[in-house]
Amino acid sequence: MSAPPPGGERERLARAALTRVFEPGDERGGRWIRELGPVELMRRLTGVDGPGRAIEGMTPTRLAGYRLRASSADPGRDLAEAAAAGGRFVCPGDREWPSQLDDLGDARPIGLWARGRSDLRLWALRSVALVGARACTPYGAHMAATLAAGLAERGWVVVSGAAFGVDGAAHRGALAAGGATMAVLACGVDVAYPRGHAELIGRIAEQGVVLGELPPSEHPTRTRFILRNRVIAALTRGTVVVEAEYRSGSLVTARNAQRLGRFTMGVPGPATSGLSAGVHELLRGEGTLVTDAAEIVELVGEMGELAPARRGRVLPTDALGTAALQVLDALPATGVAGGREVARRAAVSTDEALGRLYELHSLGFVEREGDGWRLTPGRTCNGDARRGGA
Amino acid sequence: MSAPPPGGERERLARAALTRVFEPGDERGGRWIRELGPVELMRRLTGVDGPGRAIEGMTPTRLAGYRLRASSADPGRDLAEAAAAGGRFVCPGDREWPSQLDDLGDARPIGLWARGRSDLRLWALRSVALVGARACTPYGAHMAATLAAGLAERGWVVVSGAAFGVDGAAHRGALAAGGATMAVLACGVDVAYPRGHAELIGRIAEQGVVLGELPPSEHPTRTRFILRNRVIAALTRGTVVVEAEYRSGSLVTARNAQRLGRFTMGVPGPATSGLSAGVHELLRGEGTLVTDAAEIVELVGEMGELAPARRGRVLPTDALGTAALQVLDALPATGVAGGREVARRAAVSTDEALGRLYELHSLGFVEREGDGWRLTPGRTCNGDARRGGA
Repeated sequence: MSAPPPGGERERLARAALTRVFEPGDERGGRWIRELGPVELMRRLTGVDGPGRAIEGMTPTRLAGYRLRASSADPGRDLAEAAAAGGRFVCPGDREWPSQLDDLGDARPIGLWARGRSDLRLWALRSVALVGARACTPYGAHMAATLAAGLAERGWVVVSGAAFGVDGAAHRGALAAGGATMAVLACGVDVAYPRGHAELIGRIAEQGVVLGELPPSEHPTRTRFILRNRVIAALTRGTVVVEAEYRSGSLVTARNAQRLGRFTMGVPGPATSGLSAGVHELLRGEGTLVTDAAEIVELVGEMGELAPARRGRVLPTDALGTAALQVLDALPATGVAGGREVARRAAVSTDEALGRLYELHSLGFVEREGDGWRLTPGRTCNGDARRGGA
Repeated sequence: MSAPPPGGERERLARAALTRVFEPGDERGGRWIRELGPVELMRRLTGVDGPGRAIEGMTPTRLAGYRLRASSADPGRDLAEAAAAGGRFVCPGDREWPSQLDDLGDARPIGLWARGRSDLRLWALRSVALVGARACTPYGAHMAATLAAGLAERGWVVVSGAAFGVDGAAHRGALAAGGATMAVLACGVDVAYPRGHAELIGRIAEQGVVLGELPPSEHPTRTRFILRNRVIAALTRGTVVVEAEYRSGSLVTARNAQRLGRFTMGVPGPATSGLSAGVHELLRGEGTLVTDAAEIVELVGEMGELAPARRGRVLPTDALGTAALQVLDALPATGVAGGREVARRAAVSTDEALGRLYELHSLGFVEREGDGWRLTPGRTCNGDARRGGA
């Protein structure tokens, strides 16, 4: 793989500290990290010896600001705090790092703070973003929930921003369908924002994943919301805008997605609705009109369509973690089993089982069928499958 | 021009008769007309000497049917009846023939029966079709009326099929804005179908144009409705589907338009509405999403955008009829005049004046501004315009 090798505990600490130094999406910071490495960069920012000129392009004023932030960073405490809250810090080079984010270049997150049991990389592989207005109409909320449920039923992970309106409806729709959902926050993953969604965010952290670029206890700002959108766009295979006014943040996410070569979709609404005007603007450009989950999956799902081809290959079960293997073994040889049944047989919690099932789905080991799961047919009998296809 | 030269009264009579022999869009009939000419074809169909083999590809059974229809045709009476009802029969080669219809090849109408004062060709040059479901929602009716009014205000002719629902709302929207509208019927232009639209169709014949392929007193059939749609598609620069279920007639019109290289547009609606499902299907294909008249004109209006270039050319006012010249002269040298004022100064009826104004608009002599009309700036001072542009 082209990802840099894990830099060990020193690099992890340096990256955790740098999430306190640079705001999300700071491309200069990203370039310095790339050029100097996180450990050396932190050394220069915190060392007593390094003047401004030691880092090319950094003005004395700016350096002062960075130094102040760097000197007050306590990554060890942040990591401990995150761990105490059931969280972790995932770095580029980690097995779990979603390498899609590397498409952001120097604006790539320095690392991701995450809560939730599931593998970020595997979940992101098979994910779609549903975004839209906070002050959505009942129609927008209905569409978000319906699309999310449909995506979940098809084994896709629903990614959104945990905001009121479309975001919340999307997360809830996925959760209600017993599906997987990821919330990308514009604040620390231990901060419940908006307050009214504290319970929802907690539930997502249990059944899904809550993640973000900002270290513990950081609060959102307008800029952080906007820059959070690039992470949603880059993480997923496509972004669906459900309802959006002209010039709204959701359109920023969609444009980010477009620029990154992701699929950009929009849900039509009445031409008389200002909350559909932004979506229609998108659809008059590059966006694809979608009206249900099947149409979304049709567009983003080539990966899924590749699955049959992969069935013939010997899949690297030895690369799976213990928990995933346990869940895989808990599936019946033939037929479909519900998530709860799988959990019972694997002796893990239902949320744990669901997390592993979505990972196994991304890797092509299992398939979703209705409310349940089954082993991908032909997976364990490659020879037969090949003979059958000859 | 490539249109055949007018064949005189004999050809006109033969074509009028042939509209009683062949159903709309009969391509074999069209080929025979092209190969033999209408007069010779009628001679063979009505003559006592001509057996079936005299016309290549015509089976004896089919010939018998055609001969029966041909023998009972009385084009002289039809033309007289049409004239009595204020109508006329327009043939290929006539100055007024809308040559866009030639794109239909052998499925081109044999001729067009029309009621209304205005020039078919000039009106069609600057026309857009608004079509959609008969059983439309209040939203669909609202959009049809609003788009039609907006098109009329921009000097565009609204073409539709006089049916209940979207069609009716479109015609009414154009009429209400003091605009031009054409109804293409699937029956004789003296037949008011649907009955409930008798008054509307009468009003269109006064203020606009009612036209169709079928001779007087003919009634619509399912097939005739479907084949009527190709005329709407070919006549106009683009077709807008306002509301349509899957597999609806409006989608047939849209597909016809697409095949003929016309613009195909659709008005989005709620994804939860079955009456928008057909439109969304269209928009997921080649159709362009439009939400207001400005977006429609932006798409179909290159002709309008060419107008400035044409201003520099000497326009052939000598090609205009007396009535059009009268109306042109009635416009003030500078500033805007309402249709009624122009009518008064030209000593013609308001409907007559409007008809001529739309024709003059198509030719670039006049422009629409708000509710009124003005001479196209620079039209009468080409020399000055050229110097100004150098």
